[in-house]
Amino acid sequence: MTEQGQHRVVIVGAGFGGKYAARALRKADAHVTILNGTNHHVFEPLIYQVATGLLSPGEVATPVREFFRGQKNTEVLQGWVTDVDPDARTVTATAPDGVPYQVPYDTLIVAAGTTQSYFGNDRFAEFAPGLKSIDDAVELRARIMSAFEMAELATDPAAAERWLTFVIVGAGPTGVELAGQIAEIARRTLPGEYRRIDPAKARIVLVDAVDRVLPTFSPESSAAAEKRLRKIGVDVRLGTKVVDIDATGADVQTSAGTERITAMTKIWSAGVAAAPLARRIADATGAPADRSGRILVEPDLTVPGHPEIFVVGDLMSLDKLPGVAQVSIQGGGYVGRTVRDRLAGKNAGKPFHYFDKGNIATISRFSAVADLRGLRLSGLAGWLLWLGVHWAYLPKGRNRASSLVRWAVAFLGRSRSERAVTSQQINARAALRTVASTSTAASLKQTEKDQEVAAELTSAG
Amino acid sequence: MTEQGQHRVVIVGAGFGGKYAARALRKADAHVTILNGTNHHVFEPLIYQVATGLLSPGEVATPVREFFRGQKNTEVLQGWVTDVDPDARTVTATAPDGVPYQVPYDTLIVAAGTTQSYFGNDRFAEFAPGLKSIDDAVELRARIMSAFEMAELATDPAAAERWLTFVIVGAGPTGVELAGQIAEIARRTLPGEYRRIDPAKARIVLVDAVDRVLPTFSPESSAAAEKRLRKIGVDVRLGTKVVDIDATGADVQTSAGTERITAMTKIWSAGVAAAPLARRIADATGAPADRSGRILVEPDLTVPGHPEIFVVGDLMSLDKLPGVAQVSIQGGGYVGRTVRDRLAGKNAGKPFHYFDKGNIATISRFSAVADLRGLRLSGLAGWLLWLGVHWAYLPKGRNRASSLVRWAVAFLGRSRSERAVTSQQINARAALRTVASTSTAASLKQTEKDQEVAAELTSAG
Repeated sequence: MTEQGQHRVVIVGAGFGGKYAARALRKADAHVTILNGTNHHVFEPLIYQVATGLLSPGEVATPVREFFRGQKNTEVLQGWVTDVDPDARTVTATAPDGVPYQVPYDTLIVAAGTTQSYFGNDRFAEFAPGLKSIDDAVELRARIMSAFEMAELATDPAAAERWLTFVIVGAGPTGVELAGQIAEIARRTLPGEYRRIDPAKARIVLVDAVDRVLPTFSPESSAAAEKRLRKIGVDVRLGTKVVDIDATGADVQTSAGTERITAMTKIWSAGVAAAPLARRIADATGAPADRSGRILVEPDLTVPGHPEIFVVGDLMSLDKLPGVAQVSIQGGGYVGRTVRDRLAGKNAGKPFHYFDKGNIATISRFSAVADLRGLRLSGLAGWLLWLGVHWAYLPKGRNRASSLVRWAVAFLGRSRSERAVTSQQINARAALRTVASTSTAASLKQTEKDQEVAAELTSAG
Repeated sequence: MTEQGQHRVVIVGAGFGGKYAARALRKADAHVTILNGTNHHVFEPLIYQVATGLLSPGEVATPVREFFRGQKNTEVLQGWVTDVDPDARTVTATAPDGVPYQVPYDTLIVAAGTTQSYFGNDRFAEFAPGLKSIDDAVELRARIMSAFEMAELATDPAAAERWLTFVIVGAGPTGVELAGQIAEIARRTLPGEYRRIDPAKARIVLVDAVDRVLPTFSPESSAAAEKRLRKIGVDVRLGTKVVDIDATGADVQTSAGTERITAMTKIWSAGVAAAPLARRIADATGAPADRSGRILVEPDLTVPGHPEIFVVGDLMSLDKLPGVAQVSIQGGGYVGRTVRDRLAGKNAGKPFHYFDKGNIATISRFSAVADLRGLRLSGLAGWLLWLGVHWAYLPKGRNRASSLVRWAVAFLGRSRSERAVTSQQINARAALRTVASTSTAASLKQTEKDQEVAAELTSAG
């Protein structure tokens, strides 16, 4: 479909970086191909609201090709990019049915984002999933909602307590927002719905090795956030390192020694690493990478020695810029404009300059903290800013309208629109059947046979 | 949590039958326990809209325990009921983590509904899933949306055509509604978004062995529905029996002989069978069952010889009543009131009487057919009635509000709010990797290694 001789731009990933790069190329004299593993762009700042039942997947995940419908020089292909060959100038992607295909490029823009990192402890993943994709969000929602169901079924108070304890590892924005939402689920949404347990007694533990929450924010905002978290009943454990995670809890270490936190539900929001594609590019081009695998780019976001390969967003390492949406959005736009100008024969030598618009994180309804340029807001003022900013950035009018309905329902009322848990997730959970759950499954009157099964599982565990 | 000596009513299933039975027991002198396999009640008449991206799961699946929050004599436990022991008067359920537990009852109300039936051809299930649960809806949505993505990746026109052909087996309300929606996705939602294929050229084939669509409707409504389906480009194939289904298509038989319809996406809406629990009850009580496994009940909906066991909805067989929502709703209400009156010492001997409110099925936007008592509507009039009725029956104000936003978006505009496909479904699809897909995955420039893989898959298939 490429016109003979037309410049081919391939963009890997339709997150913020890829989307804004493609958008900036809308009038470029080029054939643009966007490759994305799923069929949707995810509005990452609100994905925690899918995990906690406030929004539906479709409200934060919009079809990539719908967005580029009217941009005639741009096509969208679904596929996970697994490799780049800088000599042959091709990328290799995997189609939804698992079969690989290749796409040639003249200019390559890599915006493949990050994956969860467990800092070498990959065994944690099974017990403490992270929150990077819609799949993750649906999985977390199932674990959170099902934990209360399991607690209701528990005959043993200790088992109920295990199911009512939630450990969130990592007190960055995602961890703080999840902790706040789980606290609201337990104390506002669910009370009155259970007959045997009191969901409001759920224990939410937010653990981080550093000494404050939201470490990328100002110390004042960190303090305000921590205060608010404690007020809504989150057990904030700072200076606390997680040394092990298994089916029934986490082992944590403080200066005072090691402690066991018993909890069936654990969530990991402690770290990210560059997508595996970064290593392939580094290996193939000889480009240097930082500790977390991000590629050290030139001031114009190209790979050293490869002016035809750009890296943007969470995959690039430059001037210690943080891994936030704004860096991806601005980097994507910059690269798109650079490529457009190059093709138009204009001088495009101006280096990338990041404009820090500030940070914002919501703690609970009507409460957020925001660090803007010279301005700090917390509480209701911060929350109203959060509402305005996120609503403005939400793609497409229809998502804004339905999200507003959902938010009104949840913030003014107490219910949440998206609590349905599919069996797919329940079945995935069943694979996690553990020692703890055997005493939890909680017969009202357990038969001998069931007790035998339980005994077997216990000894197997 | 049962008060000493209080009558224990156990309700199996929180579909329409179970929900309305429990509701009618709100002032009964009884302890009511609802057992349901998932955490939600599904509003089944709109589940096809989840499968086709119009509504989110949460809009048709509402938490069971939220509905019964204020009904203090009622508790909800999550579990799939696998067995009933009428002598010991206990039911056995499986908790979300797979461990069984038992619940004793004095009165049992069974409203376990139906499962998909392939009339003995269970091998069809893998290739042609049905639409009974939210899981099914999410799976179907993934197949439908991904088919267009795969077509865009196809290099071979025949492969693209296979991906752009959809076969729906069974022309009852679900089949008709799905066919209409897929036609609208292809002809209204997606055009303009693809660069290599024309989604509007998708072929939607609706197959049924009987000689009219919507066979439970009046012949006039069937004719109006068929006409409208043909107008929106659905290939309606009546008097056509499906004899085989595999990865790449379906074999159908007419009076003229056998024919092959090549199609990657097949959907089964041809039949249902009673939930497996019906057989357990029939075996344990000696109750007679009909051909599809439904239990032949007494006029008061009890199991013969067991006045303490009621069967309602799709699981009961009485006077050839159809398997529609109204039979479940009215049967559930009747049984709940019967039990309440019995406990109050009142005469509760009046047999169940079904009041037929009529049938309604939507074909496409602004077009539906409705058979009411003595009144037939089609086209826009039918559609407005459909809108009013479904909106009125949708549970909870918040779902009504957000559904209305979604419907306005889709019916007045052309987009659909819920098109995001998760990798979970894509991964499930990958298991279906077939001969056909190897020629589909469509390298723009396939490497030798990929061709080897393709060759292996071809020979393996």
